Amino acid sequence: MGETWQNIAGRKQKERADRIPKEWRLSSSLLEEAENKTDVRDLPRKSGLLTQDEVRITENYDATALVGELATGRLSSVDVVTAFSKRAAIAQQLVNCLTETFFDNALARAKVLDEHLKKTGKPIGPLHGLPISLKDTFKVKGYDASIGTGTFCFQPATENSALVDLLLQLGAVVYCKTNIPLTMMALDSHNNIFGRTLNPANIRLTAGGSSGGEGALVAMRGSPLGIGTDVGGSIRIPAMCNGLFGVKPSHGRVPYAGQQNGTPIGASKLGIERSGKAELLDPDVLPQTWEQQTSLKLRGVSERAQRPLRVGIVRTDGHVTPLPPIQRLLDEVTSTLKSPALPSWSPIEVFNVDISSFGPQVLKVFNGVMSIDGANAWFDNIEATGEPLSPWLATRLRRRSAKPLDEVRKLQEQKLQLQTGFLEVWKERGGFWDTADSKARKGNRELDLIICPVAPHPVPLIDTWNTTNYTSAFNLLDVAAGVLPVRTFTEADTEGDVPASKPLNGWDKINRELWEGDRKHFVGGALSVQVLAPRLMERKLVEGMAVLEKALEPLKHKHGNARARL
Amino acid sequence: MGETWQNIAGRKQKERADRIPKEWRLSSSLLEEAENKTDVRDLPRKSGLLTQDEVRITENYDATALVGELATGRLSSVDVVTAFSKRAAIAQQLVNCLTETFFDNALARAKVLDEHLKKTGKPIGPLHGLPISLKDTFKVKGYDASIGTGTFCFQPATENSALVDLLLQLGAVVYCKTNIPLTMMALDSHNNIFGRTLNPANIRLTAGGSSGGEGALVAMRGSPLGIGTDVGGSIRIPAMCNGLFGVKPSHGRVPYAGQQNGTPIGASKLGIERSGKAELLDPDVLPQTWEQQTSLKLRGVSERAQRPLRVGIVRTDGHVTPLPPIQRLLDEVTSTLKSPALPSWSPIEVFNVDISSFGPQVLKVFNGVMSIDGANAWFDNIEATGEPLSPWLATRLRRRSAKPLDEVRKLQEQKLQLQTGFLEVWKERGGFWDTADSKARKGNRELDLIICPVAPHPVPLIDTWNTTNYTSAFNLLDVAAGVLPVRTFTEADTEGDVPASKPLNGWDKINRELWEGDRKHFVGGALSVQVLAPRLMERKLVEGMAVLEKALEPLKHKHGNARARL
Repeated sequence: MGETWQNIAGRKQKERADRIPKEWRLSSSLLEEAENKTDVRDLPRKSGLLTQDEVRITENYDATALVGELATGRLSSVDVVTAFSKRAAIAQQLVNCLTETFFDNALARAKVLDEHLKKTGKPIGPLHGLPISLKDTFKVKGYDASIGTGTFCFQPATENSALVDLLLQLGAVVYCKTNIPLTMMALDSHNNIFGRTLNPANIRLTAGGSSGGEGALVAMRGSPLGIGTDVGGSIRIPAMCNGLFGVKPSHGRVPYAGQQNGTPIGASKLGIERSGKAELLDPDVLPQTWEQQTSLKLRGVSERAQRPLRVGIVRTDGHVTPLPPIQRLLDEVTSTLKSPALPSWSPIEVFNVDISSFGPQVLKVFNGVMSIDGANAWFDNIEATGEPLSPWLATRLRRRSAKPLDEVRKLQEQKLQLQTGFLEVWKERGGFWDTADSKARKGNRELDLIICPVAPHPVPLIDTWNTTNYTSAFNLLDVAAGVLPVRTFTEADTEGDVPASKPLNGWDKINRELWEGDRKHFVGGALSVQVLAPRLMERKLVEGMAVLEKALEPLKHKHGNARARL
Repeated sequence: MGETWQNIAGRKQKERADRIPKEWRLSSSLLEEAENKTDVRDLPRKSGLLTQDEVRITENYDATALVGELATGRLSSVDVVTAFSKRAAIAQQLVNCLTETFFDNALARAKVLDEHLKKTGKPIGPLHGLPISLKDTFKVKGYDASIGTGTFCFQPATENSALVDLLLQLGAVVYCKTNIPLTMMALDSHNNIFGRTLNPANIRLTAGGSSGGEGALVAMRGSPLGIGTDVGGSIRIPAMCNGLFGVKPSHGRVPYAGQQNGTPIGASKLGIERSGKAELLDPDVLPQTWEQQTSLKLRGVSERAQRPLRVGIVRTDGHVTPLPPIQRLLDEVTSTLKSPALPSWSPIEVFNVDISSFGPQVLKVFNGVMSIDGANAWFDNIEATGEPLSPWLATRLRRRSAKPLDEVRKLQEQKLQLQTGFLEVWKERGGFWDTADSKARKGNRELDLIICPVAPHPVPLIDTWNTTNYTSAFNLLDVAAGVLPVRTFTEADTEGDVPASKPLNGWDKINRELWEGDRKHFVGGALSVQVLAPRLMERKLVEGMAVLEKALEPLKHKHGNARARL
């Protein structure tokens, strides 16, 4: 064994701290104030480090609005990149969300972009000047992609990941990378090198994982747009934990080539696959532009739609029954969508859809697929420097034999059968719709979207996330999936009890235990739903989420101003 | 062991013969005439079984023209299906191209379609009334998909393959299935149950495989459109052997779910993948309509194009050097495309492209991927009834151990690296273009298409097809590929010698041996080129092939009326 992980972690953390300019460091009084708070989201504004303009830039625009301002020169890239770099540095000091920073390079590029715009009058691409943060798995030339593991530290990448090149081609500015869990297979973003990322809204709750550093950074408004990856829920879980919108595309939509994920190249081809002219950078990406994707064909929100939006409501995966506040959330969402009080612009047809027969089967195949290599590559990685497993993993991950080829083949067969079977869920004739809601039992209608829980519980305490089946199911089925924040968990949401009947299984039992004892810590966390669209229907998904966001606005207000406000 | 394969073959062949109506059987005098000929393509017309109208229907229209006539009712589906059914039955008696026939069902469906059109004035879909033949791997409810193997005979399918359902939804009529090689891994369509399919243009030459029955049937004009599959060349090789157009789509374009291929479901996910709203029938299919695909954006053939069509010419795969007639063909194609004598409608830029560094690597990985399961499933299949291997396979296929998982993972890694590397071939900056031809060395141009050989030899004698690397390379790389017949092999094409230098390897040596001794049997065979477009660019491929067909017309005439004429 060479250098110990403790040594490597010390050197790595010093490097990280040194890269934050002295003038961006928090005062000891602010750090003291932070120690006595659970919600730290207001501290960047209070830090005294941000000018009024920087507060405005980081709080008053979403990414779409920013690119609009940047393309016309109403905001300069230097100003925007400076504002988000400073705020990211502040966030790092409060919730430990960053791994690598390259603020200087980012500013130099911003300057070039500003000059280009000034000279030519034209932005260099649709993301001209926009700062974008990246999960640590993405490689940026000259910087580590250590994914919080000692054995990968101090090995700067020699080239960019395909997506990084694409973002740069489109005009974006990359300025920092964000924290992840050891092995990326945990739901809290903790590792031995960078430590644990905290949830800005309530540091006792988990920030989620594996793209948890992104979730915390965006929640702190230290990034207008973060890029994660999601093989079992790793974009959607942190989005839920931090009250953010998140989208997991189908395999083939986004170029994911050239990342560090701790396992040998080619392994992803055996299990769950993941995804300008992106198809020229990554052979797994489809040549299909946004305009070439199927649209919902609903008119704008103020006009009458051409046909109703058809939404299926899924209440349980049949494996773990959602806790009372999640059940109530789905009830509220359903009745709000059905409510005649809705603005007249877009009729929505809502059907209850029962996919509980899929849940347990999908979970079994997903777990099988995830353990194909018996975690051998990962145990080799951590044993090289003597690292221990992170707390959440300690009882869950162990080295096993790699599966024999025929078992892998059988898993692929089962996956294909489940994917084929799930195609029927979208169809009225498929037998999954609750026909009590439906005018006809044998029609040719198809669902546009499905709404379901992100998890069977609210945002839980650190290291207590239960099953991932509500998210990982849709990786195995390879459908497009997003997370939509609906409102904040209130005192009233602590009401309700689990049924007296026996739990369905061990997972269901653990889930009920999350509801026993003190429930107060859930208050203030985000309540979100998951939205699904068929495979590769990312455009439909995003368009549909915009319609649903508008339609569900009454819920946000009903419970007070519930969405996280800074 | 149960029933022997000989018994099963006897019963199966009797069933097949009995399903041909007595009045469609050839006279003994015609069969005698056939015995003394090598080119049997004129015999259907001479058989006396086809009316003048049936000759006209089967010879004067391509599939596009037929659907035009069928949609307007100028031709009835009953007449078209009758004509092609009769001609398919005749073809079967001359070149042994069919496996299953369901002429009665097809006629009954045609009648229903005709009535629907009469009543409503509307066709039921874009393929309304068109008879389409299917490779035996596709399942049609109520009929075997035995793929010429005893152990799968007399087990009628209980449901249709996804593509069959899709074709029916689109209005097509399925009426027969076609012969394939044992295991589908051979290049002659021979198996123990149905025997050998012959090449209609010259029964001494191979009809190709594995979609060889389709190739022979279409060449006999017994089908206007045949559906094959292609994992290593199985559409393109029979297309070349029979002088036909053929297209192998990228994985994900066409629904290939629910076929019989003799190996367990899921195995295709480990190796080479294959691919209305087809995405609702097969979870591997992309939701992208023809209109949503990228077009070449060249204007119609009589107008000036907006920009030149950019074509790369590949002369060798670096593994087996093409024989003199293939080299000459590529020379002719290149100079014809460059020639200023071309009509002015569409300038074509031609670049020599050298991909010889890829050839040997791709071959190695392809062979590795194809032998993942050690052919165990297939040896189990044939040993169940005591079947021997077909002649071509006897020296090439043997049972081996299945590969360990990590070796499969490594093959996937190598495949991904080759696919990523090949992305550069399309780009001017990639370093693969012969810049002597090019105005600039570092431009941003991209190739639309690549032209290369289908094989390093002309259509060879039965059981002598050499390497498949010229086709299988583009399965491993998953690009869109088609075959374009250019002209017929003439006496003049027998000229030329292989170089005096040592062969590159054993395959190159065998290829040279095809050119030693008598070359006369090549005369009359088809000479074709392969056309490639980037992955999933099937629309570009087909549009580009139409442009090239027109541009290469002078070659057809230069060597006399060379394309196969009936």
